[in-house]
Amino acid sequence: MNEKNCIIGQSGGPTVAINASLAGVISRAQDLGFKHIYGMINGIKGLIENRYTDLNLIFQSPELLNTLKESPAMYLGSCRYKLKDINQDKKQYELLFHKFEELNITDFYYIGGNDSMDTVAKLSEYAKITHSDIHFVGIPKTIDNDLMGTDHTPGFGSAAKYVASSMLEIAYDSSIYNLDSVTIVEIMGRNAGWLTAASALARSSFNEAPDLIYLPEVPFIKENFLNDIREVFKRKRSVIIAVSEGIKNADGDYLDQDSKYVKKDAFGHILHSGTGKVLETIVFKEFQCKVRSIELNVLQRCAMHNASKTDIEESFRIGVNAVNASENHTGIMMCFKRLSNHPYLIETEYKNVVDIANKEQRIPIEWINKKHNDITPELYDYLYPLIQGEVNVTYKDGIPFYINISHLK
Amino acid sequence: MNEKNCIIGQSGGPTVAINASLAGVISRAQDLGFKHIYGMINGIKGLIENRYTDLNLIFQSPELLNTLKESPAMYLGSCRYKLKDINQDKKQYELLFHKFEELNITDFYYIGGNDSMDTVAKLSEYAKITHSDIHFVGIPKTIDNDLMGTDHTPGFGSAAKYVASSMLEIAYDSSIYNLDSVTIVEIMGRNAGWLTAASALARSSFNEAPDLIYLPEVPFIKENFLNDIREVFKRKRSVIIAVSEGIKNADGDYLDQDSKYVKKDAFGHILHSGTGKVLETIVFKEFQCKVRSIELNVLQRCAMHNASKTDIEESFRIGVNAVNASENHTGIMMCFKRLSNHPYLIETEYKNVVDIANKEQRIPIEWINKKHNDITPELYDYLYPLIQGEVNVTYKDGIPFYINISHLK
Repeated sequence: MNEKNCIIGQSGGPTVAINASLAGVISRAQDLGFKHIYGMINGIKGLIENRYTDLNLIFQSPELLNTLKESPAMYLGSCRYKLKDINQDKKQYELLFHKFEELNITDFYYIGGNDSMDTVAKLSEYAKITHSDIHFVGIPKTIDNDLMGTDHTPGFGSAAKYVASSMLEIAYDSSIYNLDSVTIVEIMGRNAGWLTAASALARSSFNEAPDLIYLPEVPFIKENFLNDIREVFKRKRSVIIAVSEGIKNADGDYLDQDSKYVKKDAFGHILHSGTGKVLETIVFKEFQCKVRSIELNVLQRCAMHNASKTDIEESFRIGVNAVNASENHTGIMMCFKRLSNHPYLIETEYKNVVDIANKEQRIPIEWINKKHNDITPELYDYLYPLIQGEVNVTYKDGIPFYINISHLK
Repeated sequence: MNEKNCIIGQSGGPTVAINASLAGVISRAQDLGFKHIYGMINGIKGLIENRYTDLNLIFQSPELLNTLKESPAMYLGSCRYKLKDINQDKKQYELLFHKFEELNITDFYYIGGNDSMDTVAKLSEYAKITHSDIHFVGIPKTIDNDLMGTDHTPGFGSAAKYVASSMLEIAYDSSIYNLDSVTIVEIMGRNAGWLTAASALARSSFNEAPDLIYLPEVPFIKENFLNDIREVFKRKRSVIIAVSEGIKNADGDYLDQDSKYVKKDAFGHILHSGTGKVLETIVFKEFQCKVRSIELNVLQRCAMHNASKTDIEESFRIGVNAVNASENHTGIMMCFKRLSNHPYLIETEYKNVVDIANKEQRIPIEWINKKHNDITPELYDYLYPLIQGEVNVTYKDGIPFYINISHLK
């Protein structure tokens, strides 16, 4: 049997589970006797700049691999870099495949979201054209849960658990004053409302917050919104609202699109941050009561100290299975398939990455209630298993102990 | 021995430790055979409106008392209500003392911050004038750590732990891209920078963030700030900054005082929320790089899922000792006295509340570095023990299980 060497990269926005998938790949590649397990530093862009390391030399102990598994963000660093079309810029592909040849790469793994799957699709397409033997496998991750083809994405469950726990704690915080108040919690999710929907998991026999949930899948109608609040005020004084950063009005415009904080990322996506503040003003004008907006911000995707055990274990497993799948397959993305909800049973499978890349999985309209201000029990049942279980991260000196990433500075 | 009955209230902003102090009071009062342990609903204002409950009837099991101890916010609800001076409004005092007599109250406990201690001071002053036998004891709490007379305040350690852990996770999140970026983390603290200083506890052998710390105790000089960032950029690409919401320029003006989000609370204190955004604009103008500001917001004071065990245990103990102290004393606030740092040893004592109320404990200037952009090792040593240990809160259905506070709606 010939020597096997693989290379792994991480790309896109961070999650708390992306290192678990990396740990899964390393662990399985070691088991299978891969000689070199290269890691691109800062994704495909770093590799183009010749920056990589050998993970097989670094991760020699199970303890260190476990620390990696339970560390947030990205051990290998990230990039937001889209390969040009093969016809537009052949040179970059030649350069990359020359590098693969130099390093004697047999398997290529890329952990990322939508845009990263585009990279996997393009590289495997180029491999097909040039009759390269290298296998290209995408491993999904995104807190947004917006990838096609998979029941859910690694990283989403932990973000969902953080959102639900924080929503519960904010509800407790907001309930202590005996006065009318509205608390607006702005949650990440550009076009897909999965994470905002997950705030519903904060509900229990003791807590009914969030009282209202607004998702980007349905138009946001200001008058209905104000009426919804008025209705809640009839039964309680503290109204708690979960809202996606990406809600749009009936004309399809983002609520904060004329805000001065609109920015765009390298892919031209608008980066939103002002929706909560816009709603704060709208609510205060109408009700003249205490109004506060809270942006959960990046902690949604990096709060490893409150990760979902289900998510971390699944993310590790999908990394393991990616190495298994790449023995005989290329141009694929690893996926989760849900076998049942009660008990929660999942298996990993794979699908053609070209069918997945650049598409978006949003919440099905039948999982949003008729009034467009809440989710249905079906969506709750879908979300519930993903946040179960806690990862007891190691603490040292009063703060979580995470893997050393000072090589990224 | 005569029948003993006490009444307890919580007031001011929430912390994750204020219920631990309440649990301490209840536990000790039960041990000492108090007949009624009344709880004011929504503090002294609720009592004026005749809203109270009997905690002795509710907390019959150690398990429930333990759930209370490990639940955030305020079981009894809060108020922001300042009693008028005795000479200005005698009626309110008469009404309250009439109620105390009706309920046969022997001991009064009030858990809160600066403004709550003002209530304790005024009530005990009125008791002295009217020769009442009731003992009035204040139990401190505030995430701001700005009360005089005590080494630190219950609730501060947990908020500090949340700030340090979040700062670490944000630093990991911010380090993944290979580009120049500035991340500004805005931390609570109106006039005292204790909580912002606690972000330094995120530093470890793996992590040097926060790179810069700006505190309200020293003037904020824009030119120095930009120079500080320039210096950090010489050695790393991702600059992480901790800044207090309450920093002021050399003229003593809050940085965000002309922001449209300035609000005031019932005591006339300005509620800040825009400092991070103001700095974001300043930094972007100068460096034209990726800039993000993150407001940690209310989770600093309600994230029980990341509480400090030291803080929760101490907060319980100060509640217990308040009941002990009130047997022979009145007009006091319970305090912590630090006996040593290595090992960390603390004892509770009490001081006259009139010497404490309406005063503010800020960071001593000698605990801030000469450049006014960091803290000294002495301050680090002071902070370090307060965040040690984790409270493994109970999770149910994937979210923390906290005490039922639906009576507050």
